[in-house]
Amino acid sequence: MLRHIIASATVSRQQIASDTGLSLATVSNLVGELLELGLLVEVGYQDSGGGRPRGLVAINPNGGVLVGIDVAETYVHVELFDPALTVLASVEEELHPEENRPDQVVAHVVSSVESALATAGVGHDRVLGAGISVPGQVDREGGVSVFAPNWDWHDVPLRSLLARSLDMPLYLDNPLRACVVAELWFGAGRGRDDVVVVNLGTGVGAGLAFGGALYRGATNSAGEWGHTTLVVDGRLCHCGSRGCVETYVGAPGIMQNLRDLAPNSPFLHTDDQTATIEALARGVADGDPVAAKVVTETARYLGVAVADLINLVNPEVVVLSSWVAGLLGDALLAEVRAVVGRHALRRPLAATEITLCRIAGNPVSLGAATFALERFLSAIGTNAGGLVRQT
Amino acid sequence: MLRHIIASATVSRQQIASDTGLSLATVSNLVGELLELGLLVEVGYQDSGGGRPRGLVAINPNGGVLVGIDVAETYVHVELFDPALTVLASVEEELHPEENRPDQVVAHVVSSVESALATAGVGHDRVLGAGISVPGQVDREGGVSVFAPNWDWHDVPLRSLLARSLDMPLYLDNPLRACVVAELWFGAGRGRDDVVVVNLGTGVGAGLAFGGALYRGATNSAGEWGHTTLVVDGRLCHCGSRGCVETYVGAPGIMQNLRDLAPNSPFLHTDDQTATIEALARGVADGDPVAAKVVTETARYLGVAVADLINLVNPEVVVLSSWVAGLLGDALLAEVRAVVGRHALRRPLAATEITLCRIAGNPVSLGAATFALERFLSAIGTNAGGLVRQT
Repeated sequence: MLRHIIASATVSRQQIASDTGLSLATVSNLVGELLELGLLVEVGYQDSGGGRPRGLVAINPNGGVLVGIDVAETYVHVELFDPALTVLASVEEELHPEENRPDQVVAHVVSSVESALATAGVGHDRVLGAGISVPGQVDREGGVSVFAPNWDWHDVPLRSLLARSLDMPLYLDNPLRACVVAELWFGAGRGRDDVVVVNLGTGVGAGLAFGGALYRGATNSAGEWGHTTLVVDGRLCHCGSRGCVETYVGAPGIMQNLRDLAPNSPFLHTDDQTATIEALARGVADGDPVAAKVVTETARYLGVAVADLINLVNPEVVVLSSWVAGLLGDALLAEVRAVVGRHALRRPLAATEITLCRIAGNPVSLGAATFALERFLSAIGTNAGGLVRQT
Repeated sequence: MLRHIIASATVSRQQIASDTGLSLATVSNLVGELLELGLLVEVGYQDSGGGRPRGLVAINPNGGVLVGIDVAETYVHVELFDPALTVLASVEEELHPEENRPDQVVAHVVSSVESALATAGVGHDRVLGAGISVPGQVDREGGVSVFAPNWDWHDVPLRSLLARSLDMPLYLDNPLRACVVAELWFGAGRGRDDVVVVNLGTGVGAGLAFGGALYRGATNSAGEWGHTTLVVDGRLCHCGSRGCVETYVGAPGIMQNLRDLAPNSPFLHTDDQTATIEALARGVADGDPVAAKVVTETARYLGVAVADLINLVNPEVVVLSSWVAGLLGDALLAEVRAVVGRHALRRPLAATEITLCRIAGNPVSLGAATFALERFLSAIGTNAGGLVRQT
């Protein structure tokens, strides 16, 4: 219902009931609770054509704020949102390769959050909750980063470490799940049942939604598509296996594709994947043949791996997301579609749209803040908890 | 509820209500309808310790029959079931390689069904429905085999062809989905949410269940794991792609593994995959080193491909099923587990059991008959339709 109100801007209880299929009594109760919580406000009346005028409600832009934190291998990105998940402030700090110890990452998160709050002029007391996405496998109940392969983190109690400085409810999850939730609420997944979000960053993975809801698997680690095998006995992966998808299409994998084609390329910034991918994107724009070849080679692997997802999952949409897709997605998309066309089965292929993420801003921060909103609603222990499908 | 009654043999309405969480009124209504339909019978009373004795009900063994038809590339297997899905009769006819035209396959199906009905002394009028599983992609609403890659069938209207001879409701689906339903109702999937059934036959695929229910994908073609890529630019697959899982672990793929290791092996029966796999199974039992090597080589590919499923789907259980698993499963299992251990991520691996199908009889026929039971209940248009989760 909240998703619906966010999408509608202002809406009457009667309209919500008719659009969601809930009874008017249920809608009225839920709206009443959300008004009390300050998440909604009354914003006037609508003529109902003869009957009593209908009260209109909208998300309360002053109803507290949500924090969405995207911790990636190369940066920390924090966004502040109102309850309609409109961005109020945005801060990004770079993470240098030598800054991957938990205390260093925690320090960057804390300073980014403080600086976002200061920018928006909002105190800790107005924060309803903060969602934090960290790469790798997480124990969200315990607030622990179980395994972050690119940093070799094992069982880092991230929530406890952050709680020393951040006085707000903290919810931990990973970018695969944050991106899917963002697409389901605000992106290409809206109104769709079976959705795959392919995250292309330093690590890669596939966020999954089935029947319109986030799919977590038995232990919240579903979607590790980056560690499915594309080439038996292929490139060594830091996970210990060989030939993983990630070693060909993650940012370091793309650097390797470049190195294989042109070991002395000026695009290559050793130890700086961001600079390398940015240089490649500029090269493609400038019509450089080596950059174009790297894209083709990367698309050859990515297309096969996306075709695997289409054959196995039979989704309605595959969204290419995260920062590598942001930089190289336009160049990759047509070639990926062509490779998928040669490798996917006809029937599931015909049912699938392959698209770039079109969410403005950072979808991981947005998804993380959405988790915080969902958890806030369920944590207050009222009927409002039933408003959102728990993901 | 029906699943519960089947599992309990005889049970009171009160016990059903307490075990399923349904209200006694709801259970009494549903039981009443099933008694009227003849699917259940009253079988006596249970002392309730002072109160009124409680009526006991059970599945009616004379309440009509269900037909489960497993059409595979090399055989047609038909089983007849009572409504508790106990086998009443079983018939198998071989399909020779040159018998893969639709009219030939249809003739084998019809004669197998007739012969099963004759064996059990049951007329067409007592058949509640027949479930038919055919390999490849199916349009179950239209009753059409959309694409059967091993036979190169395209858009074969199988239900119409069968309806000319078989006067009973016919439901079409494929072995991936039949096997999952069989495991959910009667096998390793009972009481579990996230289940993968790896089907190893001529073709291979993965039946998927999420949240305790069969997952079909957007167009009922989810689970085409056999056509995910294990080796980019690897063996040519009849689907048009290269390096598909199926080309390494399907029966013809295993024959190729054998041919690569020992081109003149006496185990090799050209053009007879069944005889070859049977010979290999005997070879393993006899301690033959070539047979053992073929198992190791096959397990090397199968283990990697199962690890892919574990990393992507994070299931509670992976079941190895179908006829190749029936013949070689015991030999493969330990080696597959070892390979999976080297390729799967620690966290999802720890949550997954890898096991052989333990369903007595043919799980595809059982699952197909279960589809027919589900469709019968929903087709009669009463509350009883709500008894089973529609899959």
